[in-house]
Amino acid sequence: MHRVAPVIAERLADIEPFRVVEVLTRAKQLEQQGRDIIHMAAGEPDFSTAEPIIRAAQQALERGETQYSPAAGIPQLRQALSDYYRSDYGLDISPSRIMITPGASGALLLLAGLLINPGDGMLMTDPGYPCNRHFLRLVEGEGQLVPVGPEQRYQLDAELAAAHWQPNTKGVMVASPANPSGEILSRAQLQGLFDLCQQRQGHLIVDEIYHGLSFGEDAPSILSLTDEAFVINSFSKYFGMTGWRLGWLVAPEWAVPHLEKLAQNLFISMSTMSQYGALAAFTPECRAILNARRDEFARRRDFLYPALCELGFSIPHCPAGAFYLYAGIDRFSNNSQQFCLELLEEHGIAITPGADFGRHRAEQHVRFAYTTGMAQLEKAVERLRVLYG
Amino acid sequence: MHRVAPVIAERLADIEPFRVVEVLTRAKQLEQQGRDIIHMAAGEPDFSTAEPIIRAAQQALERGETQYSPAAGIPQLRQALSDYYRSDYGLDISPSRIMITPGASGALLLLAGLLINPGDGMLMTDPGYPCNRHFLRLVEGEGQLVPVGPEQRYQLDAELAAAHWQPNTKGVMVASPANPSGEILSRAQLQGLFDLCQQRQGHLIVDEIYHGLSFGEDAPSILSLTDEAFVINSFSKYFGMTGWRLGWLVAPEWAVPHLEKLAQNLFISMSTMSQYGALAAFTPECRAILNARRDEFARRRDFLYPALCELGFSIPHCPAGAFYLYAGIDRFSNNSQQFCLELLEEHGIAITPGADFGRHRAEQHVRFAYTTGMAQLEKAVERLRVLYG
Repeated sequence: MHRVAPVIAERLADIEPFRVVEVLTRAKQLEQQGRDIIHMAAGEPDFSTAEPIIRAAQQALERGETQYSPAAGIPQLRQALSDYYRSDYGLDISPSRIMITPGASGALLLLAGLLINPGDGMLMTDPGYPCNRHFLRLVEGEGQLVPVGPEQRYQLDAELAAAHWQPNTKGVMVASPANPSGEILSRAQLQGLFDLCQQRQGHLIVDEIYHGLSFGEDAPSILSLTDEAFVINSFSKYFGMTGWRLGWLVAPEWAVPHLEKLAQNLFISMSTMSQYGALAAFTPECRAILNARRDEFARRRDFLYPALCELGFSIPHCPAGAFYLYAGIDRFSNNSQQFCLELLEEHGIAITPGADFGRHRAEQHVRFAYTTGMAQLEKAVERLRVLYG
Repeated sequence: MHRVAPVIAERLADIEPFRVVEVLTRAKQLEQQGRDIIHMAAGEPDFSTAEPIIRAAQQALERGETQYSPAAGIPQLRQALSDYYRSDYGLDISPSRIMITPGASGALLLLAGLLINPGDGMLMTDPGYPCNRHFLRLVEGEGQLVPVGPEQRYQLDAELAAAHWQPNTKGVMVASPANPSGEILSRAQLQGLFDLCQQRQGHLIVDEIYHGLSFGEDAPSILSLTDEAFVINSFSKYFGMTGWRLGWLVAPEWAVPHLEKLAQNLFISMSTMSQYGALAAFTPECRAILNARRDEFARRRDFLYPALCELGFSIPHCPAGAFYLYAGIDRFSNNSQQFCLELLEEHGIAITPGADFGRHRAEQHVRFAYTTGMAQLEKAVERLRVLYG
């Protein structure tokens, strides 16, 4: 036994657990009691990974592809992503600038390690993906949270970033489409942010993990404007490969050797069979499946957005991407966590409290994920109508 | 274009790339020219993953097990490891203390995040696994390298650790069996190190990733002495699952909630199909395959150790574990990297230079990995005999 309480690092006090876990744990208990729960909390597609990807991974296993891969990924997959940027974006991105990572999480770790000295900060939106600031905290930097609301469509632009830029700010991290808002940055906004970062000798990181999941309009990539920004992407969302833990990073050419050195030391490599599986994601057969799923997400949004608005949830603008609706609950509650637990307890609907995405008006917001089928969404809206209609 | 050279974090200057990559890159070129290269550099078994594990992963894919898992791993695998500690070690380790991680690398990241404040240090051997100190550097701590040689069997004991303990030392990291030496820590040595850490209110981390790969004698686990140490382990070595990126961490009960919070934020989860695959590693059928492979490693060591000694490589003690021989080359060279490149160029043998494991007499050492078949090992020894015999 320790004679005194064990000493742990101070950063643990600043790193928050996912609040939604309390909701999910309770949801599981209720399900074990026979309750019918509608799951609208998970940030992952409800579809299993597409058949062609599964077959390709099974075949790779059959061939015995079970050893380490290069730290930056198998060359075929880096090439496939380069081809994808050409076919889908009309961009010429050298495979040498594309590094495969263990999920977008791995890319975030590499960038925190590469760019952040102790005391450095990066600007990011509040609300936003909470892990972003925790990666910076891990390496003794800090996420500099910029409060944004519907009036900014939950996004940072150059003006707002300039107004919040501190002496220790080392750059800007944005996401488009964003989590939890689903909102997209325009080319002009991306250009403005990049120009600002250049002016202040900062770095621009754009999280494009929800690319491919936008409806009606395409999310522009920062890569169409410059080779000097960092892009984080993932096979988890549009490609539907969450449990495979595979992402990628597009970096300026100068940064690649540094990132590769970090990857060697911090990961060794990614799952080899996941990489062989991902190769099949780019076949026309698989793309057709993925695009049909994207269209299904569009249908769900088109149903859920007006329904939630009508019920009194506040979502001033209909977001064009991802699979989330970030909804104000002022009409119903001033305590988001409690609202979520009650919604679960009384109506069997699991959603995510605002506190999982930051601090700014977090208690007045919840996130609905439309990562469940249309029948479930309809049932959820019916239940909500009884309550709030 | 950046107007000035891009600014990157200072830690990059302290994190070293793997020197062996230069050897491996050249080896590949030579192979493309038709040269026959004997590979004795890789730190991974030359066997593909055992059939039962491959089948289990294929079946999990067939069932559509492709989504995120809990951050600490699927409960069945945590339970399987608890059962393994009971059957193979006679120990009662609660599944709640066992966290699945993305490789042992993931466990190292969690522990660095949990235990190290900026400026803190941990004692570790030089030579040793180089990434250990780089994980500490990532979070602004430092590896405090203790030079060890054959006279210490390349290991730390309490006396040596006490002599090197600094005011900022927060604990000790050891590995048993160790990389690159293959040497094992005795129960008495482990007890001594743990007592020292308790006395000084430090943490003891034991890397047990080569457990299961020891010949003639078992490596004792620190878990048989205390519940208050941290154990890093992996499915990569004995279980032969390198490309699956799966490891585990056994932690004191008090540490688990903190580690789980870090894991949620830093990884989200591990590969789901890898975890289902790993479940099959514990079946009697699979254990028989793995044990036969272990016996094959023993045969290789029994062949290679005397052969290298006879040739004039200096390995004063025959190590009992892992699949490495760390050999002094004083008789041949004073420049390990050049020695390795020449050996490759002239004799087609790829081995790892000492600099990949630290600084202490690194230029006078190389690491032979016997991760290739007996016929290849015999051929390597023949080639060396011509050269140095």
